[in-house]
Amino acid sequence: MNFLFLTGLVGIIALMFSFLTGRWIIKKQVTNQKLNEISSYIEQGAMAFLRKEYRYLTVFIVVVFVTISLFLSIKTAICFLIGAIFSILSGFFGMKVAVKANVRTAEGAKEGINKALSFAFSGGSVMGLSVVGLGILGISILSIIFNLNSEYITGFGLGASSIALFARVGGGIYTKAADVGADLVGKVEAGIPEDDPRNPAVIADNVGDNVGDVAGMGADLFESYVGSIISAITLGLTLKITSGNEEALYPIMLCGVGVLASIIGSLTIRYSKGDNPQKVLNRGTYIASVIIIIFAVVLSKYFLGDYKGFIAVLSGLVVGIAIGKVTEIYTSSDYKSVKEIANESKTGAATNIIAGLSVGMKSTVIPIILISIGILVAYFSMGGNTSPMNGLYGIALSAVGMLSNTGIVVAVDAYGPIADNAGGIAEMGAMDKSVRKVTDKLDSVGNTTAAIGKGFAIGSAALTALALFASYAETVDIKVIDLLNPLTLVGLLIGGMIPFLFAALTMEAVGKAAVKMVEEVRRQFREKPGIMAGTEEPDYSTCVEISTEAALKKMILPGILAIVIPLGIGMLLGKDALAGLLCGAVSTGVLVAILMANAGGAWDNAKKYIEGGELGGKGSESHKAAVTGDTVGDPFKDTSGPSMNILIKLMTIVSLVFAPLIAEYGGLLLNLFK
Amino acid sequence: MNFLFLTGLVGIIALMFSFLTGRWIIKKQVTNQKLNEISSYIEQGAMAFLRKEYRYLTVFIVVVFVTISLFLSIKTAICFLIGAIFSILSGFFGMKVAVKANVRTAEGAKEGINKALSFAFSGGSVMGLSVVGLGILGISILSIIFNLNSEYITGFGLGASSIALFARVGGGIYTKAADVGADLVGKVEAGIPEDDPRNPAVIADNVGDNVGDVAGMGADLFESYVGSIISAITLGLTLKITSGNEEALYPIMLCGVGVLASIIGSLTIRYSKGDNPQKVLNRGTYIASVIIIIFAVVLSKYFLGDYKGFIAVLSGLVVGIAIGKVTEIYTSSDYKSVKEIANESKTGAATNIIAGLSVGMKSTVIPIILISIGILVAYFSMGGNTSPMNGLYGIALSAVGMLSNTGIVVAVDAYGPIADNAGGIAEMGAMDKSVRKVTDKLDSVGNTTAAIGKGFAIGSAALTALALFASYAETVDIKVIDLLNPLTLVGLLIGGMIPFLFAALTMEAVGKAAVKMVEEVRRQFREKPGIMAGTEEPDYSTCVEISTEAALKKMILPGILAIVIPLGIGMLLGKDALAGLLCGAVSTGVLVAILMANAGGAWDNAKKYIEGGELGGKGSESHKAAVTGDTVGDPFKDTSGPSMNILIKLMTIVSLVFAPLIAEYGGLLLNLFK
Repeated sequence: MNFLFLTGLVGIIALMFSFLTGRWIIKKQVTNQKLNEISSYIEQGAMAFLRKEYRYLTVFIVVVFVTISLFLSIKTAICFLIGAIFSILSGFFGMKVAVKANVRTAEGAKEGINKALSFAFSGGSVMGLSVVGLGILGISILSIIFNLNSEYITGFGLGASSIALFARVGGGIYTKAADVGADLVGKVEAGIPEDDPRNPAVIADNVGDNVGDVAGMGADLFESYVGSIISAITLGLTLKITSGNEEALYPIMLCGVGVLASIIGSLTIRYSKGDNPQKVLNRGTYIASVIIIIFAVVLSKYFLGDYKGFIAVLSGLVVGIAIGKVTEIYTSSDYKSVKEIANESKTGAATNIIAGLSVGMKSTVIPIILISIGILVAYFSMGGNTSPMNGLYGIALSAVGMLSNTGIVVAVDAYGPIADNAGGIAEMGAMDKSVRKVTDKLDSVGNTTAAIGKGFAIGSAALTALALFASYAETVDIKVIDLLNPLTLVGLLIGGMIPFLFAALTMEAVGKAAVKMVEEVRRQFREKPGIMAGTEEPDYSTCVEISTEAALKKMILPGILAIVIPLGIGMLLGKDALAGLLCGAVSTGVLVAILMANAGGAWDNAKKYIEGGELGGKGSESHKAAVTGDTVGDPFKDTSGPSMNILIKLMTIVSLVFAPLIAEYGGLLLNLFK
Repeated sequence: MNFLFLTGLVGIIALMFSFLTGRWIIKKQVTNQKLNEISSYIEQGAMAFLRKEYRYLTVFIVVVFVTISLFLSIKTAICFLIGAIFSILSGFFGMKVAVKANVRTAEGAKEGINKALSFAFSGGSVMGLSVVGLGILGISILSIIFNLNSEYITGFGLGASSIALFARVGGGIYTKAADVGADLVGKVEAGIPEDDPRNPAVIADNVGDNVGDVAGMGADLFESYVGSIISAITLGLTLKITSGNEEALYPIMLCGVGVLASIIGSLTIRYSKGDNPQKVLNRGTYIASVIIIIFAVVLSKYFLGDYKGFIAVLSGLVVGIAIGKVTEIYTSSDYKSVKEIANESKTGAATNIIAGLSVGMKSTVIPIILISIGILVAYFSMGGNTSPMNGLYGIALSAVGMLSNTGIVVAVDAYGPIADNAGGIAEMGAMDKSVRKVTDKLDSVGNTTAAIGKGFAIGSAALTALALFASYAETVDIKVIDLLNPLTLVGLLIGGMIPFLFAALTMEAVGKAAVKMVEEVRRQFREKPGIMAGTEEPDYSTCVEISTEAALKKMILPGILAIVIPLGIGMLLGKDALAGLLCGAVSTGVLVAILMANAGGAWDNAKKYIEGGELGGKGSESHKAAVTGDTVGDPFKDTSGPSMNILIKLMTIVSLVFAPLIAEYGGLLLNLFK
C-alpha cells in the first residue's frame, strides 16, 4: 500500500509542475493590444462553450450517479463521480492555459522559433501533466480508500470515459463545423486566406481548435490512460503469480515512473538555433521512453520476480511508436501516398476523394498487423499458453506500456493546436510576415505530431479496450466466448455496425452544422458588403453560437447510444452477445479510426503539397479538388475518427461496470427461445 | 438419390428454357443498320474482354487444379474444375445474349414499353436461368457421382467462388474506369450528355455495363447460390435428425422447386398498357416466392418430419426481401436520405460527400439487425439451443431460403444493365426522343431493381458465409471458437482489415484507370477537334483497351490475396486464428458492402433528383457537386462494394476446402511460443 502513497505523491508533483508552468505562461504580459483582443474573443468563446457543456454533463452525471447507486453500489458511484470530475478538470486546466499560450506564442514568434516553441510546448505540457497527474492521483487515492477493490475503481474509469466521449464528440463537432464552414465560404467562394479576420467564422474556427483538439484530445487520453491502468489492476488482482497484490501494483508504479519521466523529458525540450523543431520534440519523447524502459525492467523483476512483465510492457511501447511512424508514412507529403492523392486531384474532386479513401483504407493494414504482433508477444511472453489469464494480463501490461509516456505525448500533441491558433492570431492581428513564417513552421510540425498522436491514441485504445474486455469476461465469469454460439455472432455483427452508426451521426452533425455556418457567413457577406472591404466588422458571435449549439445538441445521441447499446444488448441477449458486441466494436472501431485519421491527414497534406506550388499550385483546378478532399477529411480526422477510440473503450467499460447486473439478469429475450 | 436425378432434370429444363429464350431474342432481326453497327462495337468489346479474361483464368484454374490434386484429392480438383467452368459458362451465356438483347430493346422501344420490357427482361432471364440451371445441374450430377460426399463437392463451390471473384473485380474495374472516365471529361468538362457518340469512352462505358453488371453479377449470384446449397448439404450430412440423408436433400429439392418457380414467375411478366413496370417485375418475384413458400412447407414435413426447416427457410426469404426494401428507402429519391444528400450539394462537393458517406454508414444499421434476427430465428427454430449443429444447419437453410428464388432475382437484376445499354444505343443511334423516353423509364426502374438486387446479394452473402463458416468449423473439428484466445482475436482483427484492403485496391484501380481514360479522352478532343463538331469519328478502341488492360491487370492481386491470406493465416497461426479471421471478414465485409452499395445508389439518385429540376437543376453548382458524389459512388456501388460479397464467401470456402490440410499442418508459427 505504501507504493500507492508514492504514486499519489507523483500525481501531486505533476499537478504542481503543471500549475507552475501554467502560471509562468499566464504571468507573461502580452503587449500587443490587438492580439490581446483577438485572443480574448477566442478565450470567451471557448469558456462559454465549456460552461454550457458542463451544464449538460451535470445532468448526465447525476443520472448515472443515481443509477449506479441504486443498481450497483454507492462506492462505485462515488468513483464514477470522481472520475468524471477529474476528466472535466484535466480538460479545463489544459484549455484554460492553451487559450493563454496561443497569443503568447504568436507574440513570442516575433523573437524567433525558440520563444514561440517554448510557449506552445509549455502550454501543451500543462495539459499533458494535468492528464497524467489527475489520472494517477485519482487511481492511487481510490485504490487506497477502497483497498484496491477493482469493482469500485472501474467506476473511476467509467466517469473518465463517459465525459471523454462527450468532450470528444462535442469538441469535434464544434471545431469541424466551424472549420468546414469557414473554409467553404472563405477559401473556396470568397477567395480570402485562412484565418482572415474578415471571415465571420474565423473566431469560431479558432475556438474549435481549443475545445476540440486540446480539451477533447486531453479527455480522450485521460481515459485511455486511466482505462489501461484499471484493466491491468483488475486482471492483476485475479492472478496468483506472486503472493500479494504485486501484479496490480506493477502497472501503477510503472505509470508513476512514466509521469516523472515525462516531466524530465519536458524539461529537455529546449530549442537552439538551427534545430529541427520536430527533432527537439521527438527528443523529449525518446528520453522519457528510455527512462521508462529502464525502470520497467527493474520494476518487473522487483514486483513480478522475472522479466516477462517487462517484455509485455516493451511490446506495447514499441508498437505505439511504430504505429506513429506508419501514420507519418501515410500522411506526410514526403512519402508516396500523399503525392498520389495530389496527383489524382488533376482530374477533379472525385478522383481525389477516391484516392484519399483508398489511402486511408490501405493504411489500416500495417497498424493492424503491429497491434496483432503486440497482442501475441504480450500474451505469450507472460505465459498465456499455459495460463490464459496471465496472457490477458500481459495484454493489459502492453497497453500500460504504450500509455506510460502519455504525459509527454499529450504535451507534444496539444502543442499543435496552440501553434495553429498562434498562426491564426498572427494572421488576424496583421502581424509581420516573418511571424507567420515562424508559426507556420511550428504548425506544420504540429500536423505531424498530431498525426502521430492520433495513431498512438488508436493503438492504445485498441489494447486498452481488449484488456478491459478481458476484465469484463473475468468479471461475468465467461470462460469461453464462442463464435459458434449465434448470440456471440449476432453480437459481433451488431458491435461491428456501431462504429459505422457512430461515424454517420457525427459526420452528419458536422455536415449539417457546416451548411448552417456557410449560410450564415454568406448572409453576412451579402448583408454587410463592408466586411470584405474591411470597413465593417463581421459578427463573430453568431458563428460561435452556431458551432456551440450544434456541438451540444448533436453530442447527446451518440453519447447515450454508446452507453445504452451495450447495456441493452446485455440485458436482452445476455453476456455472450455482449462479449461478441465488444469484440465487433473494437475490430471495426479501430479500422474506422485508422482509416479516418489517415485519410484526413493525407488529404490535408495533399492540399498543402499543392499549395506548395506543385501541380499548378494555389488557385489551380487541382487545388480546388484538393480543398474538397481536405474538407471531407476534416470531420474524418477530427470528429468521427477520434471519437471511435473513446466509443470502443466506453462501451467496454460500461459493460465492465455493469457486469454484475448483466451476469445476473442479462438475456431477457432469450426466454422466448426456451 | 432419385431426388438428385429430379433436380438435375430441373437444371436441364432451366437451361433449355434459357436456350430457347436466347434463340428467340437473337432470331429477331434488327432493321436499323446504325443500331446494328453500334451494338456490334459493344459486342466485340465485351467478347474481346471475356476472351482475354479467360486466358488469365485458365492459368489460375490450372494452378489451383494441380495444387488441389497434389495436396487434397483429384476428386476435389475435378469438382473445382467443373465449378469454374460452369461459372464461366453462366457468365458467358448471359452476356452473349445481353449484348443482343440491348439493341433489340432499343428498337423495340419504338413500339412502346411492352416490346422493350419484353426484350430486356427476356435477356435478363437467360442469365437468371443459366445461373440456377447450371448451379443445380452441377451440384446434382456431382452429388450423384460422388455419393453426396461434401469433401469433394465443396470443390465445386471453390471453382464457382474463385471465378466469381475475378469476374466481379475485373468486370467492376472495367465498367467503372470507363464510366468515371467518360463522365469526368464528357459530362463535366465538355458538357456533352451521357452516351453521346462524340465521347471516345462511350463504347467502353457500354461494354462495361455488360462485363460488370451482367457477367460479373451473374457469377456473383451463381456462387452465392451454389455456396448456400453446399453449406446446407455439408451441415445436413452431419446431422442425425432423420435416418438417411434427408437433411442434405431438403435444400437441394427446395432449390429445384425454386428454379421451376422462377420459370413460372418469369412467364407471368407481361406488361399491359398503364402498368407500372416496377410492379410488373415485382409481381413475378412475388409469385415465385409464394410458390417456394408453399413447397417449403410440404418438403419440410416430407424430408425433416416437421415444419422447423420451413421456418428457417422462411426467415431467410423474408429477411432477403426486407433488406431489399430497406435498400430502396436509403437509395430512392422518394425518401428522405437522398433528398438530404441533394440538399447538402448546395454548399458544394465536400458536404455532398460527407452526407453520402453518412447515409451509407447509417444504412448498415437495419440490415444488420435484420440479418441478426434471421440468424437467431433460423438457429433457434431448428432447435439450436439443445443441439448447436442443428441450429447452424438452420442458418444454412435460411441462406438457401433467401437464394431459392435466385433465378428470377438475377433475371430482374440483369434486366437493368440491358435497359441501360438500350438507352445508350438509342442515344448514340440518334433515335427519336420518344424512344429514349421509354428506355429512360425502363432504366430508372432498373436502378431500383439493381439496388434491391445488391441488398439481396449482400444479405445472402452474409448468411452463406456464416453457413460455410460453420461447415469449416465442423470440418476442422473445432468445437469452440474462443474470442478470449488471442489467436482468434488476432485473426478477427486481421480478418476485419481485409475488406478494407480489398476495397482500397479495387478503388485505387478504378481511380488510376479513370485518370488514364480521362487523359486519353482529353487527348482525342485536343488532337481531333472534328470530334466535337461531329465531323470526325472518335477512336473508341483505345478507350476499350485502357479499360480492358486495367481490369485484367488489377484483378490479379485482389484475387490472389483472397485465396492466399486465409491459407497463410491458417498455416502460420492455425485453425483458431483462421476462424477468427473469417468472422472478422464477414463482419466488416458485410458492413463495407452495404455502406458502399447504398452510398453509391443514394449519390446516383441525388444527382438524378437534381437533374429532375430540383435545387437549380442541371448545370447548377449543386448539380456539379452531385456529379462529384455520383462519380465517387461509382466504384463504391459497382466495383468495391459488390466484390465484398464474393470476398467473404471465397475466403470461407477456401478455408473449408483446405480445412483438412490446415487441421493437420496449420499453426507453424505457434511453435515459436512453445
